[in-house]
Amino acid sequence: MRLQPVRVLTVADLAATLLFAVEGGALGAAAGLDLFGVLVVSSTTAVGGGIVRDLLLGDVPPAALRSVAYPAAIGLGWLVVVVLYSGVRAIPAPVLVTLDAAGLGLFCVVGATKALDFKVNPILAILLGTITGVGGGVMRDLLLREVPAVLRTDIYAVAAGLGAVVVVLGRRVGLPRAAAMAAGAVACLTLRLVSVAFGWHLPQVTA
Amino acid sequence: MRLQPVRVLTVADLAATLLFAVEGGALGAAAGLDLFGVLVVSSTTAVGGGIVRDLLLGDVPPAALRSVAYPAAIGLGWLVVVVLYSGVRAIPAPVLVTLDAAGLGLFCVVGATKALDFKVNPILAILLGTITGVGGGVMRDLLLREVPAVLRTDIYAVAAGLGAVVVVLGRRVGLPRAAAMAAGAVACLTLRLVSVAFGWHLPQVTA
Amino acid sequence: MRLQPVRVLTVADLAATLLFAVEGGALGAAAGLDLFGVLVVSSTTAVGGGIVRDLLLGDVPPAALRSVAYPAAIGLGWLVVVVLYSGVRAIPAPVLVTLDAAGLGLFCVVGATKALDFKVNPILAILLGTITGVGGGVMRDLLLREVPAVLRTDIYAVAAGLGAVVVVLGRRVGLPRAAAMAAGAVACLTLRLVSVAFGWHLPQVTA
Repeated sequence: MRLQPVRVLTVADLAATLLFAVEGGALGAAAGLDLFGVLVVSSTTAVGGGIVRDLLLGDVPPAALRSVAYPAAIGLGWLVVVVLYSGVRAIPAPVLVTLDAAGLGLFCVVGATKALDFKVNPILAILLGTITGVGGGVMRDLLLREVPAVLRTDIYAVAAGLGAVVVVLGRRVGLPRAAAMAAGAVACLTLRLVSVAFGWHLPQVTA
Repeated sequence: MRLQPVRVLTVADLAATLLFAVEGGALGAAAGLDLFGVLVVSSTTAVGGGIVRDLLLGDVPPAALRSVAYPAAIGLGWLVVVVLYSGVRAIPAPVLVTLDAAGLGLFCVVGATKALDFKVNPILAILLGTITGVGGGVMRDLLLREVPAVLRTDIYAVAAGLGAVVVVLGRRVGLPRAAAMAAGAVACLTLRLVSVAFGWHLPQVTA
Repeated sequence: MRLQPVRVLTVADLAATLLFAVEGGALGAAAGLDLFGVLVVSSTTAVGGGIVRDLLLGDVPPAALRSVAYPAAIGLGWLVVVVLYSGVRAIPAPVLVTLDAAGLGLFCVVGATKALDFKVNPILAILLGTITGVGGGVMRDLLLREVPAVLRTDIYAVAAGLGAVVVVLGRRVGLPRAAAMAAGAVACLTLRLVSVAFGWHLPQVTA
């Protein structure tokens, strides 16, 4: 039973890795990349955020590179894209947005929880949770030569930040690790989906 | 009095962080980003160079992520941009160039001084000083999908390198830390402003 | 004699650094950059992959920043580009492709060998070998605002991966370090050149 919390973290991390691998791979395929290029974009999207988090925490080699489970999750996501590409492309947009929001919610709580395990201050834990959630997507967009979506579109990184805040507050008030993570993931997912559904945007700064 | 040099480093670092946060935020706002996107570009510009320096030195988590003073400086810079955007936009170009050059001068001497504290060789201290000065701007330009200005425009990174060289030489001939930093910052600022004033450029390689 | 293997690694690394510095510098010059911009692109291409590898291994400051030999190799490559630019531009494409493939082959075996020295698992050694080979080129393309060639063009990263695989397998079956490196470099070089000669491409995923 003592290992339960660790497993929750790992399971959430791998699930989000798989989701983001499929999503990144599908975008790479849509951009006309070859089999290997799709694998690179898939990997970057899936583990880019976590690797940056681990570098900033000084946890090297990063978790995604230490265990064979992450390459396996990425390989599986890549296979899904390659084998079922026309199927992946046919997934309705609302389903895609929901899966992406689920991945985002899982990654932000995984990142914040891991950062708290490393005894960093709460502000940094929130920041690292957000980076874990959005970092892979930023790298993917840079590779594909797009302005990172996170800079331009609606409530995305803000939702990741909310999930991380909930984790930090939840641990502070004594919630068990798994409960804090669940609450944070649900908060992120909900804010993200509601903001899409209602077309919420943050205001621009330019008048 | 023993802590004086440390405080000089920190004060210079925070002042440059604030200057670059305002500058990055103003560019992000001009690119039409929303409130959060402006914050991301502001943060990246302000602490991107220092974070890369700290990763390369193995000083993790990076200084900018350990202390609450850096988020505070970034938040203040962001607020200035958001609240006073039309005011920021009305600042005359020569003032902007001078403020940017001041930030560059401070960052390059902070980076070189910190690198020397970590007992790296002088070449590497110069390199890390330069990276501290220009790194954030390179990342900002990548995020905004521009060819990094440092690759294309006049005497910019060269000025940062000069500031770092002055710090390394100054410490070698026995100048106190604060004096070496002041000399380096003035050298960088001067070269940068003179090169702008006289339209100095490095030659291209293509015939 | 005990130091022989170390020297093989260093010599291979420096030779590849020089090759990639010339190549990156020539591309930067062709993009119209000034003398300093060419130096930045040259450095990035030459040591970008190795620095990422060392950050991921936790070997900081990275090797390329610890020894003066790497800046010297980069400076030499930069000088070659600056002094002999019209000559460099006149090099026939097949020669360029071969030199690039040689650099790629050297870097991927250097990266895989170093990773094995750090006792990482074989999968990670292969990944780090590949990153060492292609990482600098990806950064160069990002700086020059091009979609990274590695995502789009033929058998490039795959050749680097093959070289790393050969090193890992070679060490596992008991080959001496230098022999495993030679075999890996030849495998990478051969696959790369054959794929160019015959116009081999990986299939795209889109139907």
